[in-house]
Amino acid sequence: MQETSAIPGRVALLSIGDELVLGQIEDTNASWLARELQAIGAMPGERRTVGDDRGEIARTMRELATNHRAIVMTGGLGPTLDDLTRESLGDVVDPGAQLLTDPAGAEHLRGWFEKRGRPMPQSNLRQAMRPPSARLLDNPEGTAPGLAAHIGACAVFCLPGPPNEMRPMFARAVAPVLREEGRAVLTAALHTIGAGESVLAEQLGELMQRGREPSVGTTASNGIVTIRIRSSGPSAEARVALAATVDECTARVGSIIYGRDGEALAAAVGRLLSDRGLSLATAESCTGGLLGALVTEVAGSSAWFQGGFVTYANERKVNDLGVRSATIERFGAVSAETAIEMARGCLTATGADIAISTTGIAGPGGGSETKPVGTVFVAIAMRDGGTYARRFQFPGDRATIRSRTAHLALACARFTLLGEPERRLLWSESEVVRVERA
Amino acid sequence: MQETSAIPGRVALLSIGDELVLGQIEDTNASWLARELQAIGAMPGERRTVGDDRGEIARTMRELATNHRAIVMTGGLGPTLDDLTRESLGDVVDPGAQLLTDPAGAEHLRGWFEKRGRPMPQSNLRQAMRPPSARLLDNPEGTAPGLAAHIGACAVFCLPGPPNEMRPMFARAVAPVLREEGRAVLTAALHTIGAGESVLAEQLGELMQRGREPSVGTTASNGIVTIRIRSSGPSAEARVALAATVDECTARVGSIIYGRDGEALAAAVGRLLSDRGLSLATAESCTGGLLGALVTEVAGSSAWFQGGFVTYANERKVNDLGVRSATIERFGAVSAETAIEMARGCLTATGADIAISTTGIAGPGGGSETKPVGTVFVAIAMRDGGTYARRFQFPGDRATIRSRTAHLALACARFTLLGEPERRLLWSESEVVRVERA
Repeated sequence: MQETSAIPGRVALLSIGDELVLGQIEDTNASWLARELQAIGAMPGERRTVGDDRGEIARTMRELATNHRAIVMTGGLGPTLDDLTRESLGDVVDPGAQLLTDPAGAEHLRGWFEKRGRPMPQSNLRQAMRPPSARLLDNPEGTAPGLAAHIGACAVFCLPGPPNEMRPMFARAVAPVLREEGRAVLTAALHTIGAGESVLAEQLGELMQRGREPSVGTTASNGIVTIRIRSSGPSAEARVALAATVDECTARVGSIIYGRDGEALAAAVGRLLSDRGLSLATAESCTGGLLGALVTEVAGSSAWFQGGFVTYANERKVNDLGVRSATIERFGAVSAETAIEMARGCLTATGADIAISTTGIAGPGGGSETKPVGTVFVAIAMRDGGTYARRFQFPGDRATIRSRTAHLALACARFTLLGEPERRLLWSESEVVRVERA
Repeated sequence: MQETSAIPGRVALLSIGDELVLGQIEDTNASWLARELQAIGAMPGERRTVGDDRGEIARTMRELATNHRAIVMTGGLGPTLDDLTRESLGDVVDPGAQLLTDPAGAEHLRGWFEKRGRPMPQSNLRQAMRPPSARLLDNPEGTAPGLAAHIGACAVFCLPGPPNEMRPMFARAVAPVLREEGRAVLTAALHTIGAGESVLAEQLGELMQRGREPSVGTTASNGIVTIRIRSSGPSAEARVALAATVDECTARVGSIIYGRDGEALAAAVGRLLSDRGLSLATAESCTGGLLGALVTEVAGSSAWFQGGFVTYANERKVNDLGVRSATIERFGAVSAETAIEMARGCLTATGADIAISTTGIAGPGGGSETKPVGTVFVAIAMRDGGTYARRFQFPGDRATIRSRTAHLALACARFTLLGEPERRLLWSESEVVRVERA
């Protein structure tokens, strides 16, 4: 990109908090805000992080105000004495003046605690304070109102740090002000699972060349590779160009794309199930509930998800799913045979149309020569079809292996529903084992 | 904390890259570096992120050099034309001079490609270039050497962006230079669940006063409030002072602290279970597997966790847990009565010693006048005791409500195991319902 990040039309992001400076928590707010700004046609500029220090926060606001049209700040609005964003803003916009207690803000706080039947700690009243020339931004999600003010021509917005409070406040009070009419930076994300990033890059070829407009790039996370397309310019042209590049990418990459623009993999599986009136159940060992959690993240999943079994102990596999003890003894709890009996047993126990099972060694202990940590078996059983099991060998630590397992298990279900149960998948180490209907 | 983040003894962190400014990837390098700096007794200062813009990078380096003893930069050292850190460093440390090709650096690059049997793209030679007064830092892990130079008295280190190259280079070439002998910044984190941040702040009182050494602060996430203590100074004194403040916080806040320094809530529950030789099972409706997933995140949880049931559909509650249809008809699936039958049924089905059940309305749909979105019932059944149910009213969206439910359900189990089943908990709206053993 040629544009400089300090051109006056840009929006600076400023994150406040010792816990950020000290690296105790990751700052996911700034990158979320950067993406949201682009969605409304605004360009993110410089990004800074400073600790809970009144003078530093004020100095940084002044510096950023000299070369940005707006500053969006997050954090430092809590009720405690180490939350200093209100005071710093006052030092910059109303130097020498005391903070006021905003009557409407104080009313909101009292109502918040009253509604919850709790006494309001006196310290919370600090959250209703503001510099005289600032105004409060409503926060229905929490106790900390936001603040809006101006440093000269630069608009300043102070939002609370917790994402579940910050995000709706940005959408409600900040986005409408910063939106750049007529100009757009439009983005599309195409999500894939089952192929590596370099394979996708080869298929996308010259679409990924730098300088191409719209731009095409890939990012990988949790086994999901996302193709990101960005188109900027006058709104109408940007929209047409975006759609053309999306079509081009889709034509090259094919059915491995399961969804767009943040759609969850489980939601894509749910769509396939709903379309055919099928229901799903799960039988989890190494994922311990994570697969069910991914499925039920999807609002409305009760229409196609029955529930399932977390059979962490072998006794549970035998009692709840009817896995034969002999199978576990002969092949091990981590085997294609056990995975297949888990999935078939889950169908029988629930009456669902399709069942997914997982069993594996998530580590750090429990690995062996023939089944090292990361060895996982996934089986998919279809009421009106066979059962398919495959072996994966996942890299990474316990959390990575479990997350990959849950995601690739959904991918296996998806390709089975698409009629491609034996499709080659990333990290899948062996041929697919197919068992006819029992 | 009294120290300002711009005092000359601090180390600034500067991350370079359009993909960071645009929010396409999270910057985990800066927080990792912040923690590593503290481990060697150095204090992180300001943190900035700027795009791939030669002028902006140079300007930012100059600004940070005025009030930090060192700058650690990451990113912008790749072979392509949008990687401009080398040029920007040259503009600052050797203005007007051309970059040189470093002979040893060029040799390293040729060897790198030769070893892998690949021809070296001509563009990679850019990575061996440096400003005349800078020196290269070896990179055995990749093609991009680092750079070290000085801006006046301020040391500047440019490291590659990929963490697997950046981290060893920091350890090898940067940490030894920045280490402050005999001095330490030590931190402790005490994790609590069940009380609000402002209630804890009142209990901690003057310990949280700014300027106190060691410093005490709080952060909240997922219903967990963490007390963060930081002690800096000569190593021995810092250690003694940290321990004393940890003891003081623990004395004031009491049993609501479940763990330290990143210990998971589920691990703390597991410890209580293991100590008594007890086993756990789960019966989940609205959490859909999330509770089991939290439990099985803990390595070794198979020693005390049997497994459980994801009874998302009512049919599953009746068939798998023996919940009476009449109970669901009369009181609803989201009720204390259903939660209690789920937990008792889970004990019966599994033979575990303690069972946790969840049922609630996670939204966005499904709420009613008397049971709005966020209404959740949690029950804890003990083999050798009664069953306790309580009603929560959680704020937030679907993901927040589900996450809060899983965490507070673990908190309920923990307090029951501690002999305080009726302890007042955050978001708990009603008296605890107690049912004698069935």
